[in-house]
Amino acid sequence: MSTPTVPLAEILSQGDEVVTGQVVDSNAAWLAEKLTHMGFLVVRHTSVGDRLADLVQAFTEASGRADVVVCSGGLGPTEDDLTAEAIAQAFGRPLALDEVALADLIAKYERFRRVMPEVNRKQAWLPEGSQRLDNDWGTAPGFAVEAGRAWMAFMPGVPREMKRMFEHRVVPLIAERFHLLPAHLVTFRTTGCGESNLQEMLTGLALPEGVVLAFRTKLPENHVKLRFPASMPASGMAAVVDEVGGRLGRHLFTIEGAESLELSGAFDTAGGDLAARVARQLLAREATLATAESCTGGRVAVSCTLHSGSSAWFLEGAVTYSNAAKVRQLGVPEALLEAHGAVSEPVARAMAEGIRERAGATYGLSTTGIAGPTGATPDKPVGTVHIALATPSGTEHRELHLSGERDRIQILAASAALDLLRRHLA
Amino acid sequence: MSTPTVPLAEILSQGDEVVTGQVVDSNAAWLAEKLTHMGFLVVRHTSVGDRLADLVQAFTEASGRADVVVCSGGLGPTEDDLTAEAIAQAFGRPLALDEVALADLIAKYERFRRVMPEVNRKQAWLPEGSQRLDNDWGTAPGFAVEAGRAWMAFMPGVPREMKRMFEHRVVPLIAERFHLLPAHLVTFRTTGCGESNLQEMLTGLALPEGVVLAFRTKLPENHVKLRFPASMPASGMAAVVDEVGGRLGRHLFTIEGAESLELSGAFDTAGGDLAARVARQLLAREATLATAESCTGGRVAVSCTLHSGSSAWFLEGAVTYSNAAKVRQLGVPEALLEAHGAVSEPVARAMAEGIRERAGATYGLSTTGIAGPTGATPDKPVGTVHIALATPSGTEHRELHLSGERDRIQILAASAALDLLRRHLA
Repeated sequence: MSTPTVPLAEILSQGDEVVTGQVVDSNAAWLAEKLTHMGFLVVRHTSVGDRLADLVQAFTEASGRADVVVCSGGLGPTEDDLTAEAIAQAFGRPLALDEVALADLIAKYERFRRVMPEVNRKQAWLPEGSQRLDNDWGTAPGFAVEAGRAWMAFMPGVPREMKRMFEHRVVPLIAERFHLLPAHLVTFRTTGCGESNLQEMLTGLALPEGVVLAFRTKLPENHVKLRFPASMPASGMAAVVDEVGGRLGRHLFTIEGAESLELSGAFDTAGGDLAARVARQLLAREATLATAESCTGGRVAVSCTLHSGSSAWFLEGAVTYSNAAKVRQLGVPEALLEAHGAVSEPVARAMAEGIRERAGATYGLSTTGIAGPTGATPDKPVGTVHIALATPSGTEHRELHLSGERDRIQILAASAALDLLRRHLA
Repeated sequence: MSTPTVPLAEILSQGDEVVTGQVVDSNAAWLAEKLTHMGFLVVRHTSVGDRLADLVQAFTEASGRADVVVCSGGLGPTEDDLTAEAIAQAFGRPLALDEVALADLIAKYERFRRVMPEVNRKQAWLPEGSQRLDNDWGTAPGFAVEAGRAWMAFMPGVPREMKRMFEHRVVPLIAERFHLLPAHLVTFRTTGCGESNLQEMLTGLALPEGVVLAFRTKLPENHVKLRFPASMPASGMAAVVDEVGGRLGRHLFTIEGAESLELSGAFDTAGGDLAARVARQLLAREATLATAESCTGGRVAVSCTLHSGSSAWFLEGAVTYSNAAKVRQLGVPEALLEAHGAVSEPVARAMAEGIRERAGATYGLSTTGIAGPTGATPDKPVGTVHIALATPSGTEHRELHLSGERDRIQILAASAALDLLRRHLA
């Protein structure tokens, strides 16, 4: 059997907001990664603005170069949404009303007790002979057409709709059409450690031929990614994953894509973010959490409650921004605030212990600090943050010195607090 | 005097790491924004991998379409850095050793007491007739060539080197070559209304020639953007801004880019997000806010505390996820919870009134709902959310029916709560 040639893929993004730089085109990178791992060679990304002639030209060119062209954007109801029109012109496929798409649009509005604006009817007009891609995550239906050498899929530009439509509609259709040899991807999710430190930890790592190592920062996490060729046996992958996982040590909180590998190390392989890992740890112990936040302003609570089912382990949070709230909601002694200031180890400890006791939770987690840009003092510069964890057997504390803008400091402080709990429970 | 035509710009990024999605191409967005504000019409971004034939094709095509082509990446010393070679092939400009570039490279290594690796000599070979762009921020020199209709600049892919080279080397050369008229951008930030509703509100709007209208969704906001040509007088811009602002009505919470215009309407032109607008309203009244959140899990508090100086008006927040916390932290009567359930108008009202009273705040804001995907009942589907605002003169309430994933419902509910306060204070 001869090795099949690797099919070529291109990615196209439409929209003035992309082409003028108002948004970074993160859709393209996401799609490129997916297509690469599916086994395509991604050869080009193109972004064009909301100009009909440019769209027609870009679609026509791509249809002559690639086997698969994946496009996002330009499916909305407004006048600058021109994708279907451009396909009609580029490939001589006049638009036709898709009755199913129209009924679906109307039903979506009815479900939310709203009348569909007249302009939205436009979204049900699809190029003749195209295949509708139903959108269960938003209003605009997508569609797919064959043109030139390419199979082309068109999806909304809103990232969450695009991602879901790609996974649920486009991937199955691609699988029917192409004989692909997918790469295997393993992601190591770490926190509390910069990218250059991760690189140092992996210095001298000997990777088998064809294995690609990459780093990606996704604040507040850093990811290490390994891409294994389809030909690599599971035992070979497991050896590399064990080696990398061991080197990352306690900074590693979960591994994604390694569920099916037989690893020697005792790694968490359930994936997800830091709060998801903490949720698993708490549920396994039938333990609960309550939070008391000052400088993070509620970010720890938001990270927890983002997860469905969090009511089983997250009891409550207090965002005690004022000193009065720290006293009333958490029982922090006024004398402590006067003696040490709100940004101090004793206050962080008292906050964690206070919320733990009042909420009747197994663990209490607190943050207090100076997120900036104002509020600094000579001995407490911007980025000074105290975090504390109250447990049944005593209270732990960490002092952090973070840098950057206000939101970065808040994000990193909230993550460090959750990570204090994760490491305590590990 | 005839209106000068707006010159066209394209952006090209080279590198396998971009085209396979290992890195998000943030260079392209940065360059696009700079070029747009300088007065170019950016019509296309292209990313290609490290394959000579693809690079030659992409450079050749771009040189025939645009007046300026700005490229980054592919200038390093390794075999997969092919930019200069591709330009040599594309435009018949054989590579020649640039002695100044070579001496500069050697001097850079000497400065760090290192011997220059032999492979780096390659970086001093530039296409014949090109203009060297000295790199004071890294090793690889850039260069510029004229080809086809375009002036093309080639810079390193490392973002900090690229940005400095663009500002210090490329911008001055562009200024010599083009007579640019920077555009003027006005952004209308709205909330509580979908993009298609905004489109309907603006139906039949007569825009002066050259004014471009665009829509952009930035959850939980929708933006309407107007781009005015440089030639447009301030009075003309003001008339359009007044018309658009008037049509958007109470959905509009601030306008950006209109500070210097003399508007007839009483619009807020200080810009920023919804919480920033609410902050201005509260500060003007010397009023304060406290929040009581269930389904939004702290997102209202995070929106508020994202802003430096929020301690002047944001007193505290309670994330009362459990019923026990609603009773203890907010004083919601247990009987009310039993009679109506936690997701109900009476409980939302009691939460807002409870936090207002306990925190001693002017306003109390609450959310309680079903963010999903679990927790729905036949009469309370996922997306059912009650929000309430307790004020010195009584309590307001809204029932929302939101759709989408858990995080989307949380984001929209938090925004709707803040917007209830914004409209009350308007």
